[in-house]
Amino acid sequence: MAFVTCIAPVNIAVIKYWGKRNEELILPLNDSISCTLSTEQMCARTTVVASTRYNENKFWLNGKEENSNSPRLINCIKDIKEKAEKVESEASKLNVHICSENNFPTAAGLASSAAGYAALIAGLASLYGVKGDISAIARKGSGSACRSVLGGWVRWHKGELADGSDSIATEIAPASHWPEMRILILVVNDARKKHSSTSGMKQSVKTSAFLKYRVEKIVPERTDQMVKAIKTKDFETFAKLTMQDSNQFHSTCLDTYPPIHYMNDTSHAICDLVHAYNNIKGCNKVAYTFDAGPNACLYMLEQDVPEFFTLIMNVFPSDLDSVEYVKGMPLKVSVLSEQLKELADNYRHNTGALKYIIHTCVGDGPQVLREPHEHLLDKDGFPCKHS
Amino acid sequence: MAFVTCIAPVNIAVIKYWGKRNEELILPLNDSISCTLSTEQMCARTTVVASTRYNENKFWLNGKEENSNSPRLINCIKDIKEKAEKVESEASKLNVHICSENNFPTAAGLASSAAGYAALIAGLASLYGVKGDISAIARKGSGSACRSVLGGWVRWHKGELADGSDSIATEIAPASHWPEMRILILVVNDARKKHSSTSGMKQSVKTSAFLKYRVEKIVPERTDQMVKAIKTKDFETFAKLTMQDSNQFHSTCLDTYPPIHYMNDTSHAICDLVHAYNNIKGCNKVAYTFDAGPNACLYMLEQDVPEFFTLIMNVFPSDLDSVEYVKGMPLKVSVLSEQLKELADNYRHNTGALKYIIHTCVGDGPQVLREPHEHLLDKDGFPCKHS
Repeated sequence: MAFVTCIAPVNIAVIKYWGKRNEELILPLNDSISCTLSTEQMCARTTVVASTRYNENKFWLNGKEENSNSPRLINCIKDIKEKAEKVESEASKLNVHICSENNFPTAAGLASSAAGYAALIAGLASLYGVKGDISAIARKGSGSACRSVLGGWVRWHKGELADGSDSIATEIAPASHWPEMRILILVVNDARKKHSSTSGMKQSVKTSAFLKYRVEKIVPERTDQMVKAIKTKDFETFAKLTMQDSNQFHSTCLDTYPPIHYMNDTSHAICDLVHAYNNIKGCNKVAYTFDAGPNACLYMLEQDVPEFFTLIMNVFPSDLDSVEYVKGMPLKVSVLSEQLKELADNYRHNTGALKYIIHTCVGDGPQVLREPHEHLLDKDGFPCKHS
Repeated sequence: MAFVTCIAPVNIAVIKYWGKRNEELILPLNDSISCTLSTEQMCARTTVVASTRYNENKFWLNGKEENSNSPRLINCIKDIKEKAEKVESEASKLNVHICSENNFPTAAGLASSAAGYAALIAGLASLYGVKGDISAIARKGSGSACRSVLGGWVRWHKGELADGSDSIATEIAPASHWPEMRILILVVNDARKKHSSTSGMKQSVKTSAFLKYRVEKIVPERTDQMVKAIKTKDFETFAKLTMQDSNQFHSTCLDTYPPIHYMNDTSHAICDLVHAYNNIKGCNKVAYTFDAGPNACLYMLEQDVPEFFTLIMNVFPSDLDSVEYVKGMPLKVSVLSEQLKELADNYRHNTGALKYIIHTCVGDGPQVLREPHEHLLDKDGFPCKHS
């Protein structure tokens, strides 16, 4: 039996994907652009093993056995096996056991399915010796997963072909291109139930005239501007486009009937705070973006992290100790000017409005782990006890 | 000295006005449609008096002297005097004292300036014997005030002429046309500062591509559909269009840069509750609409008020006694089905999420009050002590 364990990153879109032109193949209505986050802080890990001894595919997610007959999972395995047959992989005829875990709470709503499917497809590709693009296969697992098979800055092309074979992810720039870029994720406390993004998108496509206009008239131009801003490391433009596109995505959700709202009062307060801060600084120092949930992802450059982080700690006090409240890369506290102290006073929230904060940076794509102790499946192909 | 006292109603738009094509003349980018609310529950009252003894115009609002040199006020007085000269009114040469009051809290954010300017212009028109359309003059005081000079269902035409003379309000149907219509206003507790709608609109016109699309492509068709729904008393369609247009207005605000958000978590919860209720009932029994603030205006037919009101009382408990919490027309409590009790349990909020509830109906336009004790100015033209 051959074991492969793979980790894959989370990605955060700066030009948003919302709406499919083909539900089954998961083909999007527009191109999107994302940043791949470092796997040091957040990743999905998947172990795959193929064996003659297995009568069926089996799948465990975060320690719990899941239905291995979901159409999306079956599609992904079928596709990768077809590619494997071309390279005459023996394993391609066997059933597989798959075990997947996230090292961050899935409840946080942080694109865990993207990382999960990217790790799975990268793992199967390695197991079967498949080379070349795997983003189109990952896409069939979870649309945005196709962006997690590459590192750095990634563009997911909507493609033109009916079979979706040109709806793939490509690299705009590697992680090393903009090493100063940092990401703060503010995980927001929220009582509301989350709309599934699959059904939300469907409803928007059906009912929102704004979505149609966005897809046809706005995203194509904005995508070009974003590629240029990333390539030239123009933070000012990058920040403006990122915030505008996040707002427009949520605007489209509100224009859906019945309306969908993912951001809550805390999310909106974070937006206001970022604009007030940028206004004081006289330029865009921080950019926010929100996915299908209330959590904020904030982009900023390394040099600006200490001050903005200190502001956040002042605005959002917590009862947790700092190890619990602030995770990821080390963070330094700085001294706030009188003006920023006043800003913090104006925006101060009750204790506990944020669950916790993650500090991370841009990272590489999926990696295969070679050490046996890193596998999530034991020698018989069942989840290890520690997992 | 001739005293005139006039009351004027609040109006609630069902097709929203957002964005001007001319800032000074207050000419809108699109037609809008509103319902005039009964002055029994909510109104502005204004007393005007002209005298040779006054060296200048004076203006008191809710007991406080205000600047009588605001360009909008000056414009309105100038326009009405020009019309007065044509009817050879002697009073048109004199300065005026104006005193205005709302019988509902201005803090509630309930279109108080619309009612206030409508009462002022109707009062001045009566004082000077001016006949014919006064909506174009009221419009220059506060855009939506032009809709408060008429009762029932009102359309404000954007007009085509550069001088704005065709940007007037006309009646779609009188208050008596749809006597079953009821309005529940849910005044929401809110900590945030309100964006002024004047500057908000300006920012949307400048930055939102969605607003441009809405104005050109969506509102014209939707306005026609709304007129038809009102004329045929088609509540199902009326409700859908009302909710869609409210959502699209707030969607446009969110697409503005920096984004504007008037609705808060409680507002969104009210939307969700209305959709869940309508879903259970199998048709649209209730429609929500939100202006530039978090308060919900709910339209429903008389027969459906008791049940929905009971649901609201279950979802939004209050510490206030019922006289404080529920104002306006009498409200009856009904018995909720098990399904609606479950709905209430699912949506229950903490005590105090709503400030209070107003129950009202469709009403007539401004009225002149003839009784001397109804004046807000004493015989010398200064605010009465009781005001």
